[in-house]
Order: sequence, then structure tokens, then C-alpha cells
Amino acid sequence: MRVEIITVGSELLLGEILNTNSQYLSEELNRLGYSVLYQTTVGDNKTRLAQALQLALQRADLVITSGGLGPTQGDLTKFVGAQVMRTPLYFDEGVYKAIEQWLQRRYTSPVITENQKRQAMIPQGATVFSNEAGTAPGTALQKKGKTLVHLPGPPRELQWMFRQRLKPYLLRQFGSQGYIASQYIKVYDLGESLIEERLSDLERQQQNPTLAIYARPGFVEVRITAKAASEEAANTMLQPLQKEVERRLARRIVTYNKETVAHVLGRLLKAGHWHISAAESCTGGLIGSLLTDIPGASDYFLGTIGTYTDEMKQQLVHVPASLLASCTAISAPVAAAMAVGSRQLYGADIALSTTGLAGPGGGTETRPIGLVYTGVSGPWGTVTHKNIYMGDRREIKLRAAVRAIYYGVQYILKHSA
Amino acid sequence: MRVEIITVGSELLLGEILNTNSQYLSEELNRLGYSVLYQTTVGDNKTRLAQALQLALQRADLVITSGGLGPTQGDLTKFVGAQVMRTPLYFDEGVYKAIEQWLQRRYTSPVITENQKRQAMIPQGATVFSNEAGTAPGTALQKKGKTLVHLPGPPRELQWMFRQRLKPYLLRQFGSQGYIASQYIKVYDLGESLIEERLSDLERQQQNPTLAIYARPGFVEVRITAKAASEEAANTMLQPLQKEVERRLARRIVTYNKETVAHVLGRLLKAGHWHISAAESCTGGLIGSLLTDIPGASDYFLGTIGTYTDEMKQQLVHVPASLLASCTAISAPVAAAMAVGSRQLYGADIALSTTGLAGPGGGTETRPIGLVYTGVSGPWGTVTHKNIYMGDRREIKLRAAVRAIYYGVQYILKHSA
Repeated sequence: MRVEIITVGSELLLGEILNTNSQYLSEELNRLGYSVLYQTTVGDNKTRLAQALQLALQRADLVITSGGLGPTQGDLTKFVGAQVMRTPLYFDEGVYKAIEQWLQRRYTSPVITENQKRQAMIPQGATVFSNEAGTAPGTALQKKGKTLVHLPGPPRELQWMFRQRLKPYLLRQFGSQGYIASQYIKVYDLGESLIEERLSDLERQQQNPTLAIYARPGFVEVRITAKAASEEAANTMLQPLQKEVERRLARRIVTYNKETVAHVLGRLLKAGHWHISAAESCTGGLIGSLLTDIPGASDYFLGTIGTYTDEMKQQLVHVPASLLASCTAISAPVAAAMAVGSRQLYGADIALSTTGLAGPGGGTETRPIGLVYTGVSGPWGTVTHKNIYMGDRREIKLRAAVRAIYYGVQYILKHSA
Repeated sequence: MRVEIITVGSELLLGEILNTNSQYLSEELNRLGYSVLYQTTVGDNKTRLAQALQLALQRADLVITSGGLGPTQGDLTKFVGAQVMRTPLYFDEGVYKAIEQWLQRRYTSPVITENQKRQAMIPQGATVFSNEAGTAPGTALQKKGKTLVHLPGPPRELQWMFRQRLKPYLLRQFGSQGYIASQYIKVYDLGESLIEERLSDLERQQQNPTLAIYARPGFVEVRITAKAASEEAANTMLQPLQKEVERRLARRIVTYNKETVAHVLGRLLKAGHWHISAAESCTGGLIGSLLTDIPGASDYFLGTIGTYTDEMKQQLVHVPASLLASCTAISAPVAAAMAVGSRQLYGADIALSTTGLAGPGGGTETRPIGLVYTGVSGPWGTVTHKNIYMGDRREIKLRAAVRAIYYGVQYILKHSA
């Protein structure tokens, strides 16, 4: 199955947004064993879009577009697609009703514009993919051995559509064409170049399975991928390489696939019936936000207290004024005192803290931008860690927050094993 | 100048990496006034790469490739490019010396492989772009009014090459082709389709300047772009359309370009010498994190208090137990009490609060997932807002946090004007 992905949108050609849809679709389609041979991006331009579609339908069996299904005049994909496929469009009353209902469920007094009717125009003979994540339905039209699929552009809608609609459709129509299995191993306490050094020969000799290393904010990801006729066979192929990677990295704490350290911490806390809190200075609330990204966090997360100023550090988490005066706010003793104070404030079993300098101003020779102290306090005492993180203000905050959660995991594993 | 960008690499077609090179090059080229009309991605395959290059050289004046310049047998771009341009390659002794030197500077005992010589093969008549960020030199070859440029694939190298080599080359050869000015207007309290309805005629009649509408998490962005010979002229062209858009939207609160509502709130707080705090339930700390993304937030941000459980709401921000019992935690009165409590706790002038249901579990008919109450408390009393946000857990959190900051701005503007 030769596939071409066409992402439609002038904002892509202007470089305004990253093309995450091409990556998402490619990854998913490869997993079904389909061969993505081309990714093309064109603007919201009738002529060029028509030419791109024509070419794609020549050189691929399956063409999937994303974008240009909205209610506006600039949304052309479905109309140009129908023209290229020489198929008339009709107004689908049922689709329109669904759009109306969707808007009514969402908004107390929805304004259903005349434009919205454009979204209910459907190519004759097409399969309609109803959209529960937005208003634009998707479609799939087969003609003369070619299949043209339209999906909406917003990544959340596109991903929902793929999982719930297109993937089942493709499996029904064409089946799986081999299976690609991937395993992602995330390492939180080793740098990319060190990991690279330990794994470089595995990376070089790769054919199937393959290995790749990516630097991510706060961790390094090692990806292993294998292709085989079945899911089981692909997974079996992965295992020896995965074991070898894990042996060489010799890490106690890694996470797999979509899982983050926040998931791991959540599992450990639940298992021990512990509750956690935080006190955040430079991360501003981000530790709390990352912990609450996990569904069910209310089982173990009590809250985070922002103590952004010296005064708040004293008043809310009882950091002694003398400590702030002698060590300054960005110091290991203050990080420790903040963690202890948060634990008391929330009555938590374990508390995390951060205090540091996220920049861009205020860096000095001895206290550079990126310097962050992290504290962990709990039943086994209080520990602190010192790090200097790279990046801009937001990256430093993210790296520091991810690492603080990692230290929480480390603290529990060290003492409760 | 019509441009096509061709990114070469099977890892892109496999969906293993995000195509940041296409975005980077597109943004930079648009800034020079060049029109990027196509972005194409092909794998490391001789035939398909040759076809893609041929097509690109037909439909564009300038074709820029990224990737496939490495020393391995799979790196084909330069060889296929020369073949398509009907130009022989020669071994460039000087280029080879530079590669050797680069490797020797980098590594204590560099392994200079025979393969490395491939990187010193240069198309006859091409301009060579020496690479100080890696080993692969770039090239630019002009023939019959077409220009074919090869750049290395690793983003850091590509970006270095563009800034230091290709951009000066393009300006020397073709000059700037006018200036593109863009203005982004972000609206926080109107839906996309309503904005569309108010602006659709402007969107339709667009040529230069152009107008586009994008839904973003927590706001809608209206982009106006003008192209002119100079920066000044482009900016002048923008103004009437911008004024018209602003008149039609009749919004008091918008932000421009990279600015967020957190910037606006920061400016207002600074101007009034006010301090702000928050109390967060469903957003978990994200309001605090967004506010502290702004450099200098310590001038006005005191902290956020996470009160994730009913108990914490009572203990830390003094929400009455009776209120929690009668109204439940997800209610306007509790949001109000949380804001009042946070204000007292931090001694802040103004406080924001959120309480709601981020999902994925726990939704009911009357309290659906996405239901969030926001409170704002300050010298002019306490107000609450009710919203139902779309999306998954993380999106709901983000929308709710952005909106809470927006309500803070609204509160100040309403009362202090």
C-alpha cells in the first residue's frame, strides 16, 4: 500500500506551525505496515492543491489529506478533492444535524453560521467519518483503485479521527500489511552523548530492529523498532535488543513509551498509600501541573504551594529568615526547608521543592542562569540536589520540574525497596 | 521567487522525527519575501528522489533540499541532484582537507573513513558552503534559471548553514524580494466560527494583505500578512486591515504577536503596583506556571496554592465545609471562596482561582468533563465565571488556565479604567 500524505495550509508554508500531522499519520500508518512514500504540503490555493492531489493519486494508492475542512471560504480541500476525483458533492442533512448537535452540546447559545453548511457537503459515494472531537467530518472515497481520505487539520481532531475512524476503516478495507512495533525507553539521568557512546555500535549495525536516540526536554529517549508479519513477531524481535540496551544503560529508573516519570511517581505513591505535595519557586506551579496531567492524580496529590518571593517562603512554608539571609533563596538549605514546610502545610508524606534561577536576567559567575536546587522531604529524611539546566526560561522550568519528579521517584525507590 | 523545500530522509516518512527543517526554512525564506509554495518529503530512494527533484525544478525557481549529505551509502541527495541537473561531480581536495580538519579538531583520534570522501564530491560549477557546524558541506548550483541548493539534515547544522551561508548567498544572488510583515491578533472570548462570520468577507477578498484565522488552545488567532518592497511599506499596508479587524471584533482585550494574556496581566499589575496570587484545583499549578513563564514575574506574582482536595480547600484557603457540602467543590461559590482565600493567604491585591473537572473520569450529565469555575477576587469584589472547555485533560487545564488569566485582565480593565 503506497501512501501519500498531503497537509494543506498556508500557515505551514509560512513556517508558522510545525507539521505534527505528517509525523503522526506516518508513524501510525507505518505501524499498519503501510509504506508512506511522500509527504507533501501545499497552501490554501485551488490550483496547486488540485495539482498536488492529481500527482498524489497517480503515484500512491492511498492519499490522505489533513486540513482545509473548516467552515471558512479558505477551506477548500473537500471541494478540490471532489473535483479531482470527478465526484459531485451533496448536502448531507444527517451530517448537518450532527454538527448542529455538537455545537449545541458545547455552547449554551451556539451561533450556527451559514458557513457551517459547507462542512455538511459530502462527496457522493464517500464513507463519512463522523467527528466527535470537532465539527468537520472526515470522508473516504474509493474510485478506480485509488482511495482519497480527508481528515481535519487540528491535531487533536486528526488524531481522534485516525484512531476512531480511519484506522478501523483501513483495516476493514485493506487489512494490516505487516506490523511495526516500537519501544521507547526514557532515561532521566544520563546525557545524550553518554548514551550515544554506550549504544553507538548498536545504532550503526541496525537493520531490523533499528535503534535511535533523541534528546527531549528533561530526558533522553531511546527508540527500538522492529517490523514483522505480526504484532507478536515484531515484539519478539524487539526483546533481545531492548534487553541489551537496558543492560548497557544499567538504569534503575526508566519509563517506557508514553509514560512519564509523573506516571511512575503516581504508581509508587498509590502503592504505598502516600500523599505528595510541592513547594515551588522557579518552577512556579509546573510540578503541580505535570503531576495533575495524570488522570487520577487526586488519589495522591494534595497540592503545590508557590512561594515565589522570600517573604512567601518565610510565611507559607516557614523558611527561616536567617537561612534566607545567610544562604540566599537559591540554595540547598532553602530547598530543603521548602520541602519540609510544604510537607507540613499539606500534611503530606512526601514533598518536592524547587528554588533556582530561570533567567533570562539575574545570572552571575557563581549563580548562573539554570541553577536550580531541588528538595525531597519524606519519612526517610530530606535530601537536596543541585543542577544547572540549559535552555530558555520555559525549558529550564520544564527540565527542573521533570527532574524534581524524577528525584521523588528515586527517593521512594531508594528507601522502600 | 517560487521556492520548494525538499526534506530527504526515511526517518521522516516513518514518522520518527518531526520535520522542523521545513518550518525553519519556510519561516526564514518568507522573511526574505520568497514564496514557499511546496514542501515535499521523500525517503532515501534514488528513483523517487530524482522524480521529486525534477518536479520541483519545474514548478519552482529555487529548490532547497535538506538531508542525505552524510558519508554513508544511504546519503544520495548530492549525487541524485547532480544527475537531475546533468552536472558531473568532482573530488574537491580543499573540501576534503576541511572535513579532515573539522574531525581532528572535534575528536582526539578521529576515524576518517573512506566514505567520508563522498562528502568532498562537489557538482561542477557549484558554490560550496563550508560547514563549521558539521562535516557535510552545502552546495548551490545555478543552471538555466533554476537554483538547486543542498543543505545538511541535522537541524542545528541546517540552521547554522542557512544563517551563515545560504542567506547571504541568496541576498547576493537574488536580493530580498520584498518584505513580509505579519500581525497576529489573539482574541480570548470569541469562538472561531463567530470571528469567521465577522471577518469572512475580509478573508475572501484577500490578496495583499491577507487574513487567516486559527483556533489555538484558549484563544483564536487572526493573522494579517502584507508583502511590500520595504518593511515600512509592509507595515503601512497592514494598518487599515488591522484597524478594520479590530473594529469588527470590538474586543477590549486582545494580544499581539508573541504576546500572551500573561504578558498583559503582568503589565497591568506592574502599572498598578499590584500583586497577584492564585488558588488552583483542576489546573494544578498551571496558572502559576504560565504567569512565571514571563521574565520579571517576580515583580508582581506571589505564588499559587494548589488545593486539590476538599480538605486542602478548607484548611489552606478557608473554604467553609458547609459550602463544599451544599454546593460541591465544583461550583461558583467555592471558586469565589478560593480566590478570596488565596488573596488572604498571600496578602495579594488580586487572586485567581479555578475549580473544575479535567477528566477523563467523573463526568455526569449536569457536571460534564471540562466544566470549570473561575474566580477573581480583588479590591472591587469577587466575580466568578462558568465555562465548559473542550479537549483532553491537558487541553482543558490549559484552556482553563489561559482563561483565568484573561479574566484577571478583564477584572482590572473593567474597574480601573
